[in-house]
Amino acid sequence: MTCLGGGHGLYQTLRAARLCDPANITAVVTVADDGGSSGRIRRELGQVPPGDLRMALAALAGDREDAEGPGLSAELLQHRFGGHGALAGHAVGNLLISGLVELGGDVQKALDTVASLTHSCGRVVPVCTRPLDIAAEVAGLDDDPRVVREVRGQVAVASTPGSVRRVRLVPSDPPASSQALAAIRGADLITLGPGSWFSSVIPHLMVHSVVDAINASDALKVVVLNLSAEPGETQGFSLERHIHIMAQQAPALRVDRILVDSDSLLSKAERAYLSRAAGRLGAEIVFADVHSCDENGMPRNVHDPEKLAAALTGMLAAD
Amino acid sequence: MTCLGGGHGLYQTLRAARLCDPANITAVVTVADDGGSSGRIRRELGQVPPGDLRMALAALAGDREDAEGPGLSAELLQHRFGGHGALAGHAVGNLLISGLVELGGDVQKALDTVASLTHSCGRVVPVCTRPLDIAAEVAGLDDDPRVVREVRGQVAVASTPGSVRRVRLVPSDPPASSQALAAIRGADLITLGPGSWFSSVIPHLMVHSVVDAINASDALKVVVLNLSAEPGETQGFSLERHIHIMAQQAPALRVDRILVDSDSLLSKAERAYLSRAAGRLGAEIVFADVHSCDENGMPRNVHDPEKLAAALTGMLAAD
Repeated sequence: MTCLGGGHGLYQTLRAARLCDPANITAVVTVADDGGSSGRIRRELGQVPPGDLRMALAALAGDREDAEGPGLSAELLQHRFGGHGALAGHAVGNLLISGLVELGGDVQKALDTVASLTHSCGRVVPVCTRPLDIAAEVAGLDDDPRVVREVRGQVAVASTPGSVRRVRLVPSDPPASSQALAAIRGADLITLGPGSWFSSVIPHLMVHSVVDAINASDALKVVVLNLSAEPGETQGFSLERHIHIMAQQAPALRVDRILVDSDSLLSKAERAYLSRAAGRLGAEIVFADVHSCDENGMPRNVHDPEKLAAALTGMLAAD
Repeated sequence: MTCLGGGHGLYQTLRAARLCDPANITAVVTVADDGGSSGRIRRELGQVPPGDLRMALAALAGDREDAEGPGLSAELLQHRFGGHGALAGHAVGNLLISGLVELGGDVQKALDTVASLTHSCGRVVPVCTRPLDIAAEVAGLDDDPRVVREVRGQVAVASTPGSVRRVRLVPSDPPASSQALAAIRGADLITLGPGSWFSSVIPHLMVHSVVDAINASDALKVVVLNLSAEPGETQGFSLERHIHIMAQQAPALRVDRILVDSDSLLSKAERAYLSRAAGRLGAEIVFADVHSCDENGMPRNVHDPEKLAAALTGMLAAD
């Protein structure tokens, strides 16, 4: 099972993947972050931003009390330094990854070392081994809504008060990591999303060899749609619009299923639009209960790993 | 075997200890550093300075290719970030130790975790679990050589152009780590030194319970004398003066042997003075070839782990 994405969305998908197929998970992770601890490391050391990679490693980390003895814990990877100094806010795992990359000069080896130290139940692979940037065409930043400006950088795109039209990668169409392509080609199930649409999901599809590998793979290909629009980059976007954006940004992409939470309140007409949009990607819509709930049983805007695992396993069995 | 010290001196002793008794090594390490990466961490996070602890862990780290699979390497612990930013100069191992301490709130647990991750052949224990400072009475800083000033902090003491008379700890007589005391009491062999005399060796003896534990232990107690004086804190000091300082700073201390490199060019009179100084500690002088050589066979100012191991093993066997 190969899961494409980044950030918290990928984290939840990987928690689900562990429940489906713990022996055979590869996370293919975005490397376009430029904010926070990752952004500081990237600017200081010229490395791939480690944050999304670290979060994926944390999602896949083995339990500390397992038979192999105490390892490096997910908790430590995720821990952020306190205080008010130069280290404040840095995640320990980011510094560990960066130290390994600086020492050995090889991102994949560094990630495999951390995976081994954490008794990981999968592999974490950057989509590209060089840092990337995203640049977005954004409307609504000027008084005249027809004016489109370019906004560059993940933080700027994710927090723009304007409306994102499309994104591109800088540099454009970078070479994919060969491990990422191999994991896509060899998978039985590929997931794409959920996550920040323009900064964690779409960037993968801006790498042409990734789209080619997805299309060529025999895997069942599932887009896991976000539960709702996000403030900032997809503010006010309908579920249908999420799919249209994907089809527009990667017209060659072909997937099999688009997984939509059954709690989404859609009219019959909206469901029809959604199916039509899915058709542009060669996919059909599947509804399933995949959202998590808070202690009062109210839906949260986060996928539930167990429900997501059940939905994915069900789709694979029915395929 | 329990080795007291800090810095590069302790590193060499621990490399020797691995050759003597790899199953049963405890390093008892100074925590008074205030410079470099350690000093920055200590000031930012209020923790014990991790540098000397990290170096001891690196000395004891298992080989990467051992049967237990790839661990965290000594090389990574020792690696210092490059660049020109906020991370530059920080040792990766220092950040790892500090992250663990901040996360778990327990220095010893943090060190034991890193020891486990590095497949360490020993345990590293701070002499105290709180950061310490050293303050030195220094003469020769004024035109009038009789004026004695207090210089505070390891960096300041180690680099003073004056002559150090004596040092004290701030706070004075702190509580020792119980693990340090237990390791001293339970040892068959205790080593003290070599290392920066006033900042890595003498500070251990300013903790009264450490001196009591050494005196009460059945171990063979060996002071490993420095090969030469150091620029800064012991500039121009004779070997004899090193011993006098120890006896003056810790009059209650009793040890068995003082190991002096046989390459030290001493006159018969100097040897007699040395023996008399050793007597103040209840010890006898043992000469052995313990210095390392460069590729041209010239002596270096660093102990050779194999020679030191042979000397220590010999002393223990003859005891």
